[in-house]
Amino acid sequence: ADVKKVLVLPGDGIGPEVMTQVRRIMGWLEDAGKVKFEVTEGLLGGAAIDATGGPMPDETLTAAKASDAVLLGAVGGPKWDDLPFDIKPERGLLGIRKELGLFANLRPAVVFDALAEASTLKLDVVKGLDIMIVRELTGGIYFGQPRGIETLPDGTRKGLNSLVYTTPEITRIGKVAMDLAMKRGKKVCSVDKANVLECTVLWREEMIKLQQEQYPEIELSHMYVDNASMQLVRNPKQFDVMVTTNMFGDILSDTAAMLTGSLGMLPSASLGDADANGKRYALYEPVHGSAPDIAGQNLANPLATILSFTMMLRYSFDMMAEADLIEQAIQTVLNAGIRTGDIMQEGATKVGTVEMGDAVLKEM
Amino acid sequence: ADVKKVLVLPGDGIGPEVMTQVRRIMGWLEDAGKVKFEVTEGLLGGAAIDATGGPMPDETLTAAKASDAVLLGAVGGPKWDDLPFDIKPERGLLGIRKELGLFANLRPAVVFDALAEASTLKLDVVKGLDIMIVRELTGGIYFGQPRGIETLPDGTRKGLNSLVYTTPEITRIGKVAMDLAMKRGKKVCSVDKANVLECTVLWREEMIKLQQEQYPEIELSHMYVDNASMQLVRNPKQFDVMVTTNMFGDILSDTAAMLTGSLGMLPSASLGDADANGKRYALYEPVHGSAPDIAGQNLANPLATILSFTMMLRYSFDMMAEADLIEQAIQTVLNAGIRTGDIMQEGATKVGTVEMGDAVLKEM
Ligand SMILES: CC(C)[C@H](C(=O)O)[C@@H](O)C(=O)O
Ligand SMILES: CC(C)[C@H](C(=O)O)[C@@H](O)C(=O)O
Repeated sequence: ADVKKVLVLPGDGIGPEVMTQVRRIMGWLEDAGKVKFEVTEGLLGGAAIDATGGPMPDETLTAAKASDAVLLGAVGGPKWDDLPFDIKPERGLLGIRKELGLFANLRPAVVFDALAEASTLKLDVVKGLDIMIVRELTGGIYFGQPRGIETLPDGTRKGLNSLVYTTPEITRIGKVAMDLAMKRGKKVCSVDKANVLECTVLWREEMIKLQQEQYPEIELSHMYVDNASMQLVRNPKQFDVMVTTNMFGDILSDTAAMLTGSLGMLPSASLGDADANGKRYALYEPVHGSAPDIAGQNLANPLATILSFTMMLRYSFDMMAEADLIEQAIQTVLNAGIRTGDIMQEGATKVGTVEMGDAVLKEM
Repeated sequence: ADVKKVLVLPGDGIGPEVMTQVRRIMGWLEDAGKVKFEVTEGLLGGAAIDATGGPMPDETLTAAKASDAVLLGAVGGPKWDDLPFDIKPERGLLGIRKELGLFANLRPAVVFDALAEASTLKLDVVKGLDIMIVRELTGGIYFGQPRGIETLPDGTRKGLNSLVYTTPEITRIGKVAMDLAMKRGKKVCSVDKANVLECTVLWREEMIKLQQEQYPEIELSHMYVDNASMQLVRNPKQFDVMVTTNMFGDILSDTAAMLTGSLGMLPSASLGDADANGKRYALYEPVHGSAPDIAGQNLANPLATILSFTMMLRYSFDMMAEADLIEQAIQTVLNAGIRTGDIMQEGATKVGTVEMGDAVLKEM
């Protein structure tokens, strides 16, 4: 079989232990003769700060560029919270996104039938929810220049960040959203604040142009971010694909994640553009954080990281059958009432991180 | 009795008809000898565009400056949606906020017991909810310079907006939030994105300094905006007062409003600083929009505008007893099962805009 190079970055907190469960699943796929993985491990975030003094070592970046895909556990924790802005663990995450050109962040918000009760929203509002939020990830106010804090002659200080988008940046993220929608419900809702921010007036204009010129079948709508955030709470099932800026996407994708009530189940993918040789960088990671409070206690839910790995199979390796197999195994496990603590329900069987891995492997 | 000068801006859509109900309540207070109002009417938004060509006529601004408080119905509608950015109805609203220096937007998110079922969230998550969101309203990315869209030499276009805050702007909004919290649960959660945006690093630093130097009794916490938006969905009752930037506040206050399930019930206040004579500009308006689809049909819920008026009584006129009287009348009306269409529930009595006004007046 074809060799896939995967860089694994276990990261901080529960990162390493959830990653161990993914490695077992990778092993199963190899044993089944479906694929050969060449796995390298690297450091990012707090783990990298402790070992090297900085959150994104050069070796990690080099290894990422040499790999076909990167799988990340989780980054950060209170231990590194008081570090200065420039060397916080987050810098590692932002750095790797930027250096690999991972401009498209795919954040599915899906409610598993077996877990629909876990939401704080009423059952009928969220049951069957399946939204895909496409967040621009390497532009906007996250990276815009000029930025910083300056002291004015009179002693007051002034903080500045710049929200910047150019037409090619808008078009390429729009394409990702519309391509995804073509394989789903063919509906894209572009979220902006075009009644206040000129930068997002441009965003809206380019989305309209793109749809008209290249995606006649897509039904494109526009929503102001304040309204979008209300509509996610009022009736999330109205959405198919949403596409938005880096900052708005950060907020809305987390709102949407929380609607599902089970953060421990949600994966994400961050994709770059294909280069001349058709190679496209990609990083996959769970939506949840590093949960240092439960780290190392066999309590963490490995499913979001396993599902991030199935996104890797789909988007980087075109291994749809294997992705389906794993996802069906997860469904079966959930339907059988097997739960880690974070998704525990009355009458279900509570298991640890390793046992959840066992259960998924058994169903495969 | 003391004469209070009120500028009434009915605005667009359902604005005029909900305002009529407030005028009746103002009349009742006058008849009861509690106060004398000197009311002027003015134009803002779409109504102003139709009459004068622009969304904020000079006369409106002059009248606003000459008044003790402004009450606004609602602004905007599809009729004016396709106007260029610079002359949209929203420009009127942003213009009046800026010209009057209304930097503090108070957005209570309160769930009335009788209406708790209306939320899309589970009853126990929202019942008894009472949050106050304090949004900075005249700074940040809404007004920051430079801004605009430019075409680069190679033909690509670039959109730019600037997020700017200075220390005095941060301190004055922080004070408003902390003063409010002192009369409530003494807890303030400041929302920022200090792990990414330097401007909000400054925000956080100034909030900490303010609390330490002037509000030792306040329990100040900090949350990143993505997490805050999740926490609002997960467990909104953890919050007392939240304080945040203009853009984040736009999003979070609407999320919080939607948690209540009854947008038609939510008021807001926008306050300026007191000048040398102790005069402070203030504008009160419901959170809901102009709802052009139901305008003029006696269907709109006037309660949010009536509650905006009670905020005026509290914050501009120090008429606490009268504000309590009206709010208690509203509670009684709701408990009696009287409902406009937007908050209709099984078993309740559906009434129109005017009848809701009647019902409140009857209970007063
Ligand atoms: C950790 C932080 C920098 C990051 C972001 O804001 O992008 C996180 O919230 C995310 O969404 O991946
Ligand atoms: C209409 C719009 C400009 C306004 C804003 O973004 O401030 C509105 O959403 C609000 O919150 O009052």
